[in-house]
Amino acid sequence: MLSNTLSRRVEWGDCDPAGIVFNPQFFRWFDHGTTMLYEAAGWPKPQLLERFGAAGCPVVDTRASFRAPCRFGDDVQITSEIAEIGTRSFSIRHTLTKGDEVCVEGYETRVWTAEKPDGGLGSAPLPDELVERFRG
Amino acid sequence: MLSNTLSRRVEWGDCDPAGIVFNPQFFRWFDHGTTMLYEAAGWPKPQLLERFGAAGCPVVDTRASFRAPCRFGDDVQITSEIAEIGTRSFSIRHTLTKGDEVCVEGYETRVWTAEKPDGGLGSAPLPDELVERFRG
Amino acid sequence: MLSNTLSRRVEWGDCDPAGIVFNPQFFRWFDHGTTMLYEAAGWPKPQLLERFGAAGCPVVDTRASFRAPCRFGDDVQITSEIAEIGTRSFSIRHTLTKGDEVCVEGYETRVWTAEKPDGGLGSAPLPDELVERFRG
Amino acid sequence: MLSNTLSRRVEWGDCDPAGIVFNPQFFRWFDHGTTMLYEAAGWPKPQLLERFGAAGCPVVDTRASFRAPCRFGDDVQITSEIAEIGTRSFSIRHTLTKGDEVCVEGYETRVWTAEKPDGGLGSAPLPDELVERFRG
Repeated sequence: MLSNTLSRRVEWGDCDPAGIVFNPQFFRWFDHGTTMLYEAAGWPKPQLLERFGAAGCPVVDTRASFRAPCRFGDDVQITSEIAEIGTRSFSIRHTLTKGDEVCVEGYETRVWTAEKPDGGLGSAPLPDELVERFRG
Repeated sequence: MLSNTLSRRVEWGDCDPAGIVFNPQFFRWFDHGTTMLYEAAGWPKPQLLERFGAAGCPVVDTRASFRAPCRFGDDVQITSEIAEIGTRSFSIRHTLTKGDEVCVEGYETRVWTAEKPDGGLGSAPLPDELVERFRG
Repeated sequence: MLSNTLSRRVEWGDCDPAGIVFNPQFFRWFDHGTTMLYEAAGWPKPQLLERFGAAGCPVVDTRASFRAPCRFGDDVQITSEIAEIGTRSFSIRHTLTKGDEVCVEGYETRVWTAEKPDGGLGSAPLPDELVERFRG
Repeated sequence: MLSNTLSRRVEWGDCDPAGIVFNPQFFRWFDHGTTMLYEAAGWPKPQLLERFGAAGCPVVDTRASFRAPCRFGDDVQITSEIAEIGTRSFSIRHTLTKGDEVCVEGYETRVWTAEKPDGGLGSAPLPDELVERFRG
């Protein structure tokens, strides 16, 4: 399955009064991890949507487990990989590590969304070409 | 079980280019919902920690389901309630509604944490008095 | 001149490892203060733009002075008031207080922006009706 | 004078419903620019404070001018440079560019802060060794 790894330096403003990354921040990073995964698939997000006539791929479910804290100044890696491919949705696993240690594991499910004939938005089948790229 | 409800107005800066609340923002609101739940239990968070000699109650697992979008200017309610009480951990269910509609359901598990004799941090038994208050 | 005051509770996630509000957070609050000032003028922001055929009122200059720190759990007030009204721009002064103490003073200059005949965006004269409301 | 340049990719979550970077985000980036300037001076921020027995260097004044918008996916550069060195304070100029275009100019004044004999915090003279490094 397709995967991509980013590096980030933990910033002062990412951290809370306990001196560790405030947990919502990880979800921001995971969202960006998914953006970069689209780019690794061959299309930056705006082009991805345009190419396949989609409106977006909103998150419908997400979860994370926090195993070890990250602190100001830490250099961390986030690996985002396609974990499941459904007919109209797909899931991404995000693994955040510091050196050899896994600090956070995240999981997002997103729905492929397109405009419907009546003008509203609804789920739509994932394009074959995209599925092929996601399979790596 | 103890519960508490907050109202929030969705702000411009909470929303993304799709015009809807960016999902990490909900986790910020849930964190604050938990803070206010401690206050509803009888202690603002700093006093809670001091009263029981605890170091914190970090989130170890969290998840959310996004059922309907929230937009700039929406007035939403967030109800946070104790969902499970373990020996050394507890869980909070957060339900975000807009009028009669449930938009987001969240769930956090937190560990009661105290300083250990060796100076490190570790899980500790939830104080009886706190458990009683959480039971409502 | 028109003014409006909001109350906010400082949240855990607003604060940095020094235990005080991270300064960019104040600019988020000031932006929301301006939104609520539009509402105090008679129009929530979306209706304001629609009513007068405007595209937005982006910030072109902003500044702030930090006189005293704000901490987790503090209840603060933010007063936003029209400070200057130009032909195509206006300025808002934001004063954040904790009890009697002024903690932060902010100042924003915004440009009234509309679509030009060629389809681009540019500054436009402030509508008289809006100026009258801003004068209070 | 000492200067340092960072590159950033504008993320989805940095942008507002107008599709452009929400202005408080720039102040987060400038704060990180200053952190990296300390590192360019020879000390990551925690070591800097420890080395010179300081408590911090909080921002007392900041301002920014927004000349051109930044959008999702843009690659931007932020150059942070020492602009003024006082006895107990210093200022940093931040210039954010996209290709050849200057998008944002920012300016921060920070006070060198140390613990006083009575236990409180107050301004303190900038250490000579740090001033020398800031001079580049």
